Amino acid sequence: MSRRNQNPSELFDAACAGDRAALARVLSLLERGDTVAREVGRLAYQRSGSGYTVGITGAPGAGKSTLTSALIRHIRQQDIEIAVLAIDPSSPFTGGAILGDRVRMQDHATDPGVFIRSMATRGHLGGLSLSTPEAIRMLDAVGRQWILVETVGVGQVEVEIAGKADTTVVVLNPGWGDSVQANKAGLMEIADIFVINKADRKGVEETRRDVEQMLELSDLDHDAWRPPIIATVGNTGEGVSTLWDAIAEHRAVIESSGELLRRRQFRLREELREIVARRLEQRAREICTGERWDTLQQGVLDRTIDPWSAADEMLRGVEA
Amino acid sequence: MSRRNQNPSELFDAACAGDRAALARVLSLLERGDTVAREVGRLAYQRSGSGYTVGITGAPGAGKSTLTSALIRHIRQQDIEIAVLAIDPSSPFTGGAILGDRVRMQDHATDPGVFIRSMATRGHLGGLSLSTPEAIRMLDAVGRQWILVETVGVGQVEVEIAGKADTTVVVLNPGWGDSVQANKAGLMEIADIFVINKADRKGVEETRRDVEQMLELSDLDHDAWRPPIIATVGNTGEGVSTLWDAIAEHRAVIESSGELLRRRQFRLREELREIVARRLEQRAREICTGERWDTLQQGVLDRTIDPWSAADEMLRGVEA
Repeated sequence: MSRRNQNPSELFDAACAGDRAALARVLSLLERGDTVAREVGRLAYQRSGSGYTVGITGAPGAGKSTLTSALIRHIRQQDIEIAVLAIDPSSPFTGGAILGDRVRMQDHATDPGVFIRSMATRGHLGGLSLSTPEAIRMLDAVGRQWILVETVGVGQVEVEIAGKADTTVVVLNPGWGDSVQANKAGLMEIADIFVINKADRKGVEETRRDVEQMLELSDLDHDAWRPPIIATVGNTGEGVSTLWDAIAEHRAVIESSGELLRRRQFRLREELREIVARRLEQRAREICTGERWDTLQQGVLDRTIDPWSAADEMLRGVEA
Repeated sequence: MSRRNQNPSELFDAACAGDRAALARVLSLLERGDTVAREVGRLAYQRSGSGYTVGITGAPGAGKSTLTSALIRHIRQQDIEIAVLAIDPSSPFTGGAILGDRVRMQDHATDPGVFIRSMATRGHLGGLSLSTPEAIRMLDAVGRQWILVETVGVGQVEVEIAGKADTTVVVLNPGWGDSVQANKAGLMEIADIFVINKADRKGVEETRRDVEQMLELSDLDHDAWRPPIIATVGNTGEGVSTLWDAIAEHRAVIESSGELLRRRQFRLREELREIVARRLEQRAREICTGERWDTLQQGVLDRTIDPWSAADEMLRGVEA
């Protein structure tokens, strides 16, 4: 039977059995955001919950891909199966097409223990903030123990997506000031671990002091966990094992304190609320169109009906 | 019969007959945003459409109130009945309580041809962007030929509200640069007339050149109407009759070109769309609460139901 004719449930089972092409295909189905997407999403949801996500974000050019690639190499030495979601909100392309300068990721293209997927904004109702957790759950459901989520850029969306991981790594460079100035507060809020990458350049200690000072000044609660600041050189792999140890330590701390459970429950509640809002928005777009909408609009312009009554009239036909 | 016991329709009739206390009361009813508000809103809508609105906006301290007061004096000399809506989005108070530094407005407190009303953000579903057009329509419906809408500040909301008038006056001062820098583009877009108030100070010609240069550079279409730049001194009334003439001229131009009708129809369509969106938001808030919501949330946390199915489940009960 050709893969294209497999039903979603069969495809999902194949993906769970380790079929990478089937996994790629169910992820594409998910991105369509239609009823088939809902079906595979449901299947993934039931089986997910044991994987652990690490968000990696930072300004363009900070060397995130090189660092991620070095991290993958380190993790693979311990024979752990991982998945990488590379997310670029500014790109209209999806499904691997945007890897572009992520060329170093291809070091792992032939390693069956590494699954890499690119995502962009295309298609999904509610955008990346709703499609990302779904893709993560799918990768989790098919058995990837660790899922790295790399976002490009430090805008609001990127920071939000990276901040939805279990552990969030913010990548800076020596002399970081300029590149992240615009969203410093957002980055400070989500960071569980700071990395100063390209640490073979000048200015590492100044940047470390800057970050430490900001941690002092911030009113965030760092009693249970104070974000460490780790110097790395992505190209040589220097500092990467320290980073991996810090990630594992953070995981152990939030698992034992109950913080991990709280984070995940909070994220799920937020996601549910966002889905309800998106569904209603979708409905509003469906409502404010067509012949009935034109007629009511004309009635408002002619003053035979007032705007509030017209809105109520439009909404009368709305059901879930 | 005490006024408090009058039904909305009787109150509206009294307001139309010139009863100022009744007018104040129907405006308060409107601000409640409930079913009674809808009833008086409906009555006002049917009767409105002949009044003309002038928006007046500018940075705090530009002397808008003094200028507005001088403009009122000038208009009243022609025995035209007017109403003034003073809008302050940053204030939680409403119904006259915020007049504060609008003390000069009280020059007109004993003139039955002038009706002044303050509005703030309190209460109304959808905020000032929905309550302002309703209040304007009420003042229009009870027979005020001109309605001045004065907004405090040059933020996004203030500019939006002022820009919903038929003619919009942007008030600057000599050396205006700093105070309006933040929203220069927004102000340029809505201005039908520029006023350089406090023109007895230095820098009037420089400011005039600045504005003219910006008009040159902007890609807005000024073929049909190029915003004039008028120097005024609110304290002495200097330039105010020129301003009034410019307002009348702008009105004549957009009335005869059909632009006024287009503006009003566009505004009504936008308002209708916004009401539909607000109604749905309100519904989302109502939905995401209560026992059913708690149960479904728990189901999501327990993985007995996925988030999308839970959202659909919540929405199933929703009707308009």
